[in-house]
Amino acid sequence: MAASVGTVTAQAMHFAEPLPLRSGAALRDYTLAYETYGTLNAARSNAVLVCHALNAGHHVAGRDAAGDLGWWDNLVGPGKPLDTDRLFVVGINNPGSCFGSTGPASPNPDAPGQPYGADFPVVTVEDWVDAQARVLERLGIDQLAAVIGGSLGGMQALAWTLRHPARVRHCIAIATAPSLSAENIAFNEVARRAIVTDPDFHGGHYQKRGAVPKRGLRVARMIGHITYLSDDVMNEKFGRALRNDAPRYSTQDVEFQIESYLRHQADKFAEYFDANTYLLITRALDYFDPARDAGGSLARAFQPARANRFLIASFSTDWRFAPARSREIVKALVDNRIDVSYAEIDAPHGHDAFLLDDARYHALLRARFAHIAAEAGT
Amino acid sequence: MAASVGTVTAQAMHFAEPLPLRSGAALRDYTLAYETYGTLNAARSNAVLVCHALNAGHHVAGRDAAGDLGWWDNLVGPGKPLDTDRLFVVGINNPGSCFGSTGPASPNPDAPGQPYGADFPVVTVEDWVDAQARVLERLGIDQLAAVIGGSLGGMQALAWTLRHPARVRHCIAIATAPSLSAENIAFNEVARRAIVTDPDFHGGHYQKRGAVPKRGLRVARMIGHITYLSDDVMNEKFGRALRNDAPRYSTQDVEFQIESYLRHQADKFAEYFDANTYLLITRALDYFDPARDAGGSLARAFQPARANRFLIASFSTDWRFAPARSREIVKALVDNRIDVSYAEIDAPHGHDAFLLDDARYHALLRARFAHIAAEAGT
Repeated sequence: MAASVGTVTAQAMHFAEPLPLRSGAALRDYTLAYETYGTLNAARSNAVLVCHALNAGHHVAGRDAAGDLGWWDNLVGPGKPLDTDRLFVVGINNPGSCFGSTGPASPNPDAPGQPYGADFPVVTVEDWVDAQARVLERLGIDQLAAVIGGSLGGMQALAWTLRHPARVRHCIAIATAPSLSAENIAFNEVARRAIVTDPDFHGGHYQKRGAVPKRGLRVARMIGHITYLSDDVMNEKFGRALRNDAPRYSTQDVEFQIESYLRHQADKFAEYFDANTYLLITRALDYFDPARDAGGSLARAFQPARANRFLIASFSTDWRFAPARSREIVKALVDNRIDVSYAEIDAPHGHDAFLLDDARYHALLRARFAHIAAEAGT
Repeated sequence: MAASVGTVTAQAMHFAEPLPLRSGAALRDYTLAYETYGTLNAARSNAVLVCHALNAGHHVAGRDAAGDLGWWDNLVGPGKPLDTDRLFVVGINNPGSCFGSTGPASPNPDAPGQPYGADFPVVTVEDWVDAQARVLERLGIDQLAAVIGGSLGGMQALAWTLRHPARVRHCIAIATAPSLSAENIAFNEVARRAIVTDPDFHGGHYQKRGAVPKRGLRVARMIGHITYLSDDVMNEKFGRALRNDAPRYSTQDVEFQIESYLRHQADKFAEYFDANTYLLITRALDYFDPARDAGGSLARAFQPARANRFLIASFSTDWRFAPARSREIVKALVDNRIDVSYAEIDAPHGHDAFLLDDARYHALLRARFAHIAAEAGT
């Protein structure tokens, strides 16, 4: 019964009015790419916003012009857990990203004929939420039935309830955290150093030089990849398997299958991902810290969200955003007597699990979205 | 009561006879740096070999000519757990390292006037043990009272009991593993890629070019450092503390204290550590796998060690070489009815704990070495 949303065409929305940013700067004259799936009902009550993480964008479901499947296609479509026969789903590429919205590779209005490069303003989770809110306004959506996201997308889902609580009913935040730990920041920092110290980075203005800091991007991707997977799933998929029958005794050639896999992932990533975007998005992760904004109390941070309803989900083997971090969110919600369901899903896939179609995980989301759709009168 | 061994002078031992290596190659005309502490008794029964890990060498205790304290000075000295009033302690810098023994920066006998660079042969844990055995032979030590090591040093301690079981009585292996996991190899591989893709690496022949691949070394060190520490200790020491009062909103400048710390560690390391050595030592870690050598059975691998006695210790927050990995070793020993004590020490410091002077940890070693010294008749 579950089918694809079919071929989808990305749309673009231009904003002439500057977007004020948390840093004090502003983003002016920008365009956001977005896609929608399903139909907005007459009451405009069935819209669901899907927020993306680092390596994704507005293309959530179906096939795009290039034939690529959306990053959450297993979740979003007719008859799928996020059922587009009942719900109107919106995916928006955040500013600063590199998949169609205005980002570091876009023309800099302050330097005609030049790309932004390193001069693209630093954007935060809160800035993205504000940018998304403007898109929804233009689409005539006063209130979202739900906002959903995993990882960095989960942070955006949470931030919606803190900044625009009246404009969203349900928040579904998966495999996320109320802030990065020191270790999380440390991994981001290593990735950034690998990029910034690549001689092809040119202080972030590589585009003008016709260069791409691919070496740095590859290392960044490898680090990221390790933290997305669990130790268990790595051992199961690759273990200590050699590429050849016996060791070749080489320090530079591939010896183990895991090395081959990482190099392949790294090479693919360096072909399409923008280095300045990598820096911006990891910084947005670093900065997210609603508790700091509320004098150090996460419970106080969630006071504005009293009318929202939450589903928080984590995965047992996710060591990047461990279940304990999700429980911090749950505690802050409970402290405010906010309606929250929490699921800690026993899954072997580490952080990546939020993208996969684990049966229990998808059943959980199916039930929640059936309820949300019924509430929306569809 | 515990005192320092004082100022120590490194010694050098030259070997004209080639060392056959596991790869099939041989290392010829090499010199090993070593230090000794305490006095070999008349029966030559009180010698203890200390094996080093990646970033250490023969300088185990006391102050060297440069005034630097040995890397395990808190453990080794008069009245210390490894009491040099009773035991004769030997530290040897492994071939391939960069602290005084023949390594990639040494002259290549096959290319007069040139350093080895990338042509230094690939060395393994087993090769190191054989090299150490030759040093001990020359020192007139037929049998070690004990061999001890942590991390990669622990692998060497284990390999002693597999290769030369009659030449050692006690094995103390701390914070180690019977082989690297896929994740361990993955972290090594990222570090190696950062080094090898640094344009200053020149295929490993940077020395001839007057270059040093410092960018790659820095990234490698940062990755290593993250895996040495526990998430808890990072949160306690650095947390999300900012360097300034408020965020500056920059993708390239230091914002968080953890970033500042990692950059500082990385800069220090890149000043003195050799890049080819980094590749060699991480490969030695990758290759160590006594179970593979025994048809996949770790229990079968330990059959030669039936007369040895073992102390295996791990630390609760060590996620690099987790307690579960130490328990694999213990199980293989128990399967052979080999005398083994196992301690899983509740310590917050992650893998680094083996270098620190946690009271319970040092009490454990003190008791074991008191017993070893008594057995040795000192």
